Amino acid sequence: MRGAETPAAAANLEPQTAKGRATREAILRAAEDVFGEQSYYRASISEITRRAGVAQGTFYLYFPDKQAAFVELVHLLNQNLRREIRTAIADLEDRIEMERVGLQTFFDYMADHRALNRIVRESEFVAPDAYRWHYTSFARGYVEGLEEAQRKGQITDAISPETMTWILVGIAEFAGSHWEFWGGGPPPPDVFDEMMTFVGRALRPGREQ
Amino acid sequence: MRGAETPAAAANLEPQTAKGRATREAILRAAEDVFGEQSYYRASISEITRRAGVAQGTFYLYFPDKQAAFVELVHLLNQNLRREIRTAIADLEDRIEMERVGLQTFFDYMADHRALNRIVRESEFVAPDAYRWHYTSFARGYVEGLEEAQRKGQITDAISPETMTWILVGIAEFAGSHWEFWGGGPPPPDVFDEMMTFVGRALRPGREQ
Repeated sequence: MRGAETPAAAANLEPQTAKGRATREAILRAAEDVFGEQSYYRASISEITRRAGVAQGTFYLYFPDKQAAFVELVHLLNQNLRREIRTAIADLEDRIEMERVGLQTFFDYMADHRALNRIVRESEFVAPDAYRWHYTSFARGYVEGLEEAQRKGQITDAISPETMTWILVGIAEFAGSHWEFWGGGPPPPDVFDEMMTFVGRALRPGREQ
Repeated sequence: MRGAETPAAAANLEPQTAKGRATREAILRAAEDVFGEQSYYRASISEITRRAGVAQGTFYLYFPDKQAAFVELVHLLNQNLRREIRTAIADLEDRIEMERVGLQTFFDYMADHRALNRIVRESEFVAPDAYRWHYTSFARGYVEGLEEAQRKGQITDAISPETMTWILVGIAEFAGSHWEFWGGGPPPPDVFDEMMTFVGRALRPGREQ
């Protein structure tokens, strides 16, 4: 997969006008809802265009097929989520505080985009390249941040930044698949605090083994 | 979902003869391969029966539809995996040692049943009731084990057994979705050891906060 280049750009379907961009965005918003409710294979392009308020043929002005719109949503999630987290932790110094704020930002974003929460997990089966790209690109910056924190002595160096990264991403991700156990939303504050207790105990220096 | 009762039993399709049971098992083994390779929606009953070496109509003697066979595989995974782990940790006393052996057993089982590894994750989208049932039934025994370990002082009581459970299941599960990052198999020994370092630091008593 080609870095951050989107499928639409690759297929030369990027709209050139403000009206075109608005239509493309309306289709993507509708696609997000429909994929989230119905899962990929049950979702139809006609349902997506119906909700976007455009003719069915309009879809193909912007996306070559259903899969391309799905992959584009994985790309958007990745870009938006990384930007939100980067902004949220920009002024923080302590890595474990960054983990807390980053996790809270992840849950806040997912609460506003519940469908994307499912779409990215379903991409493992529907669009494996997009799934791999999402985790690989997300992990890259995460590893760098943890390396820096190890150099500063803020977290243990008993575990490699790569292993820490996928465990921490895995915990956040699995929480995202368990919202229904918490009444359909993110973990309640006491569970969130326990998650951070678990993570803090694992990461904080001292008691090396 | 009705406890451990399988969909086949519920539909009165449980075979009564040894030959019937063998045919049903052959269909399930073929279904495991086909679902694992092609994902649920691309998998066809005709491909499953072709690989099982039976006529397509034979499928319907044992399963009402494709989804029923898929759900049955989630049930089988759950039952077999729980039995394997129960057996593997039966003679152990220390909870953190149980975590290590349990995780190793999980990876060994998944290495022998790579398709099931994907099937259980895809069930979130294909058969949400089976997915919920799998985690709920798996978590029940896990929580009890952690409660006992807390009473014995083997692990911290700064985190509830329920939160520990889904974090630990989440770490194992996410590792299962990352095998391709490790060359298509379970985490290599150094990564496995780092996982256990992470878990051990989080769970071991002392340094309560």
